[in-house]
Amino acid sequence: MCRWLAYQGKPCFLDDMLLRPNHSLVLQSMEATKAVTAVNADGFGAAWYGEKGTPALYREVLPAWSDANLRSIAEHTKSHRFMAHVRASTGTNTSRENCHPFNVENWLFMHNGQIPEFEAVRFALERQLDEKYYLRRTGTTDSELIFLLLLQHGLEHEPCSALKHVFTDIELAIRAKGIQDPFKASLCISNGLQFWGVRYASFGPPPTMFVKKVDGGVVLASEPYEMERQGWQAIPSQSLVELVGESVEIKQFILEERAA
Amino acid sequence: MCRWLAYQGKPCFLDDMLLRPNHSLVLQSMEATKAVTAVNADGFGAAWYGEKGTPALYREVLPAWSDANLRSIAEHTKSHRFMAHVRASTGTNTSRENCHPFNVENWLFMHNGQIPEFEAVRFALERQLDEKYYLRRTGTTDSELIFLLLLQHGLEHEPCSALKHVFTDIELAIRAKGIQDPFKASLCISNGLQFWGVRYASFGPPPTMFVKKVDGGVVLASEPYEMERQGWQAIPSQSLVELVGESVEIKQFILEERAA
Amino acid sequence: MCRWLAYQGKPCFLDDMLLRPNHSLVLQSMEATKAVTAVNADGFGAAWYGEKGTPALYREVLPAWSDANLRSIAEHTKSHRFMAHVRASTGTNTSRENCHPFNVENWLFMHNGQIPEFEAVRFALERQLDEKYYLRRTGTTDSELIFLLLLQHGLEHEPCSALKHVFTDIELAIRAKGIQDPFKASLCISNGLQFWGVRYASFGPPPTMFVKKVDGGVVLASEPYEMERQGWQAIPSQSLVELVGESVEIKQFILEERAA
Amino acid sequence: MCRWLAYQGKPCFLDDMLLRPNHSLVLQSMEATKAVTAVNADGFGAAWYGEKGTPALYREVLPAWSDANLRSIAEHTKSHRFMAHVRASTGTNTSRENCHPFNVENWLFMHNGQIPEFEAVRFALERQLDEKYYLRRTGTTDSELIFLLLLQHGLEHEPCSALKHVFTDIELAIRAKGIQDPFKASLCISNGLQFWGVRYASFGPPPTMFVKKVDGGVVLASEPYEMERQGWQAIPSQSLVELVGESVEIKQFILEERAA
Repeated sequence: MCRWLAYQGKPCFLDDMLLRPNHSLVLQSMEATKAVTAVNADGFGAAWYGEKGTPALYREVLPAWSDANLRSIAEHTKSHRFMAHVRASTGTNTSRENCHPFNVENWLFMHNGQIPEFEAVRFALERQLDEKYYLRRTGTTDSELIFLLLLQHGLEHEPCSALKHVFTDIELAIRAKGIQDPFKASLCISNGLQFWGVRYASFGPPPTMFVKKVDGGVVLASEPYEMERQGWQAIPSQSLVELVGESVEIKQFILEERAA
Repeated sequence: MCRWLAYQGKPCFLDDMLLRPNHSLVLQSMEATKAVTAVNADGFGAAWYGEKGTPALYREVLPAWSDANLRSIAEHTKSHRFMAHVRASTGTNTSRENCHPFNVENWLFMHNGQIPEFEAVRFALERQLDEKYYLRRTGTTDSELIFLLLLQHGLEHEPCSALKHVFTDIELAIRAKGIQDPFKASLCISNGLQFWGVRYASFGPPPTMFVKKVDGGVVLASEPYEMERQGWQAIPSQSLVELVGESVEIKQFILEERAA
Repeated sequence: MCRWLAYQGKPCFLDDMLLRPNHSLVLQSMEATKAVTAVNADGFGAAWYGEKGTPALYREVLPAWSDANLRSIAEHTKSHRFMAHVRASTGTNTSRENCHPFNVENWLFMHNGQIPEFEAVRFALERQLDEKYYLRRTGTTDSELIFLLLLQHGLEHEPCSALKHVFTDIELAIRAKGIQDPFKASLCISNGLQFWGVRYASFGPPPTMFVKKVDGGVVLASEPYEMERQGWQAIPSQSLVELVGESVEIKQFILEERAA
Repeated sequence: MCRWLAYQGKPCFLDDMLLRPNHSLVLQSMEATKAVTAVNADGFGAAWYGEKGTPALYREVLPAWSDANLRSIAEHTKSHRFMAHVRASTGTNTSRENCHPFNVENWLFMHNGQIPEFEAVRFALERQLDEKYYLRRTGTTDSELIFLLLLQHGLEHEPCSALKHVFTDIELAIRAKGIQDPFKASLCISNGLQFWGVRYASFGPPPTMFVKKVDGGVVLASEPYEMERQGWQAIPSQSLVELVGESVEIKQFILEERAA
């Protein structure tokens, strides 16, 4: 299980969110209590938007807590919209190319959850990628593949229908292989102007997602970064969240039936 | 341009070949005189066979000369058959997954040269991989792809015809895109029992390859590891070399015409 | 808290001890239940003796479980005497230079525990190093410093008295600063011919140490590598263990009073 | 021989200086023509000031050209005052702790050149460090030691006299050991408000240093980052340069005789 955080609002230093809180993402990465896998020590990433349309991206294979570069950059970088992710591998290699967030042009994507028995459906799903998006693949994670499929299916123009299209394709690929476990996703996307979050599972509870309004901004995260949890609102299962400015809109996210 | 070395014979410490000679692979990695790209500082790898059928594999993204682990392991590891490679990227990422040698079960593969304009033909060539071999791909280099295609086309049973088959497929893929530059390869393969080397170019001179008989063994290398070059025999262009025990057999390697 | 293992006996593959057991060192590195610090993800090291007097040394800053090189090398390297260590930093940087085991010529040293408030006594203790040993220091850990002080005070000739000398110096340095916490050590040393282990604390329980006789050899470890714990003997507090061949000798290790 | 660059002026993206010019620092790191050592592939560092007094610091052991993080951060980070350095080791380990720039609070320091036979004088020189500065040492380079000695000897209050004091101490330490080779330094320092540069050698030519006024700013560098070299002024040997705002002041830097 990975953990992540996304912030937009009045520019703040990254470390105000990532390092300083009493249950910050970096502190979360060291603990194992609620995680399926032991700790989030299989690499991390942070990405932030500035005055360009594209984001800066910093990914490293070390545990987040032991990387002095992350600490220094987070202390000195201000941004009005950023994301960070600490990874617990569900099987694929620990390499920078497999660390979230993933970036294509102005888009960022990060993910907690997994396609069950990914190796069994990887070939079929990667075959769905057109050349244009196939060539953007640099790692081997299910997460990067979901991101590229989303871009191919119109993320830019109709994010909600792109998400439903790709999630349905994934459900069909899983069923086609007779896989019983659910596809789970607690994911976050940005185009540089807003965030989208999805909390979804084929069945059963998806990984958690929380939202909190803070002074002049809003935070979306896999878990509250404060022990007190005050002001953190749990996002219901099967939801699509849209964060535009400081507004938070939560819609139901239900896949329609589709024949294979 | 990458550089590499392969040795088989009576067991010797890896550093006798990789570090100690006056023009050793690690020293070569620091110089730029004859190289197209500046230096071989984009990672390295070493692999050695012992008493198991599969080899040990050590790959790292640092320059070979600055890795204390390589130095210590090479000083203390004896093998009767090993390979090493220093990399100068021709464009793909510097990651362990993109470092040579590549390994599948008992097989090892390393390569100097390139598929010209690889990004233009990558999609078409990777589509040729069956699921079994596709899932073994962990990086994004042309070299790893060539290796997997060779395995798929019978490297184990008929190495020469597998090589001709795959090289022809590559030539056809290049021509289909109207690419004018030659495909070049100076490569080395082992199944744990012997070596094969291929020196090939679509046209023009391929990257160099040399062979030398040493006391109780034989070395195949992209360049002599001794300044004096005494006893080093240049392998002719368009050759397939077979090293079995201390015997060296060099055959012509010419592709037959084949329609697309 | 770090964890470590040392084996000597009939040559075996490193992974038989480090990776395969159901509570292997690498698996231990992922769990947090009994550890003071969360997990042992701040680098690792392995060192093994072969036919040379000096050992091979492989240290890396990644978590042990995510390093493909460690896995491959451990699967293919046989040794009659080796050590491995997974690190949880008690404050100093995560760098290869701070990873155990530490090596000087034929000697190896690894350590679990710490000098309390090390930064407060570091200056005084490092000043005790003669130039010869001072220049061997490459990192900033208390562990490496203890090792160099031991070498300086005659580890080679009188290991027990060198240990008592240095431990007393450390106790005096701590007291001189008014530090109340105990110095704790569960450490392991080799000269390439045998092992010494010390389990010590100024007061209170030292970190654990266990010994087990296995088929044709003996293992000394910070914790049993088997869930069942069958055949694992706990080393008492304040002990010096000597492993020569398959014999295990445990002596009391009590510091004599000494004026500052 | 290392290479470095320092810029202050109107805020610009780091990559405008470090990556885009036709002889940029990152491109320089790949070439070997004028370098004593082959290439600058033994790590790099970049540091930049923002709205805090302390700088952000990013150091990595990879060659600068192969680090995707550096590229992305440099493309998206704007600063009014920054430094960058590409390293060619003169013997010490490749580790982040040995990469320039070095940072203590608001101060940055980077260096090209070396104390000759550093290992012979390291013990004596490090003994000159008071506890306060000794504990700030995290690596093993001569450069970091020079920086800490400068801080100890009043860099903050009287930079010129601190430089003369420390350089004289170094000269005396070298002489005391009968070392014949010159101490060489082309170094750059900042307190977050301005730059100081020193070009010095005991005798013979020091490493080069150049200054150029650009639109709204000024650049100090070990070599011009443009092939054309237009507008680049060579700093004479034995000089201290002060860059305050856009003004450039060059003074003679001559050590007074002092008895040991």
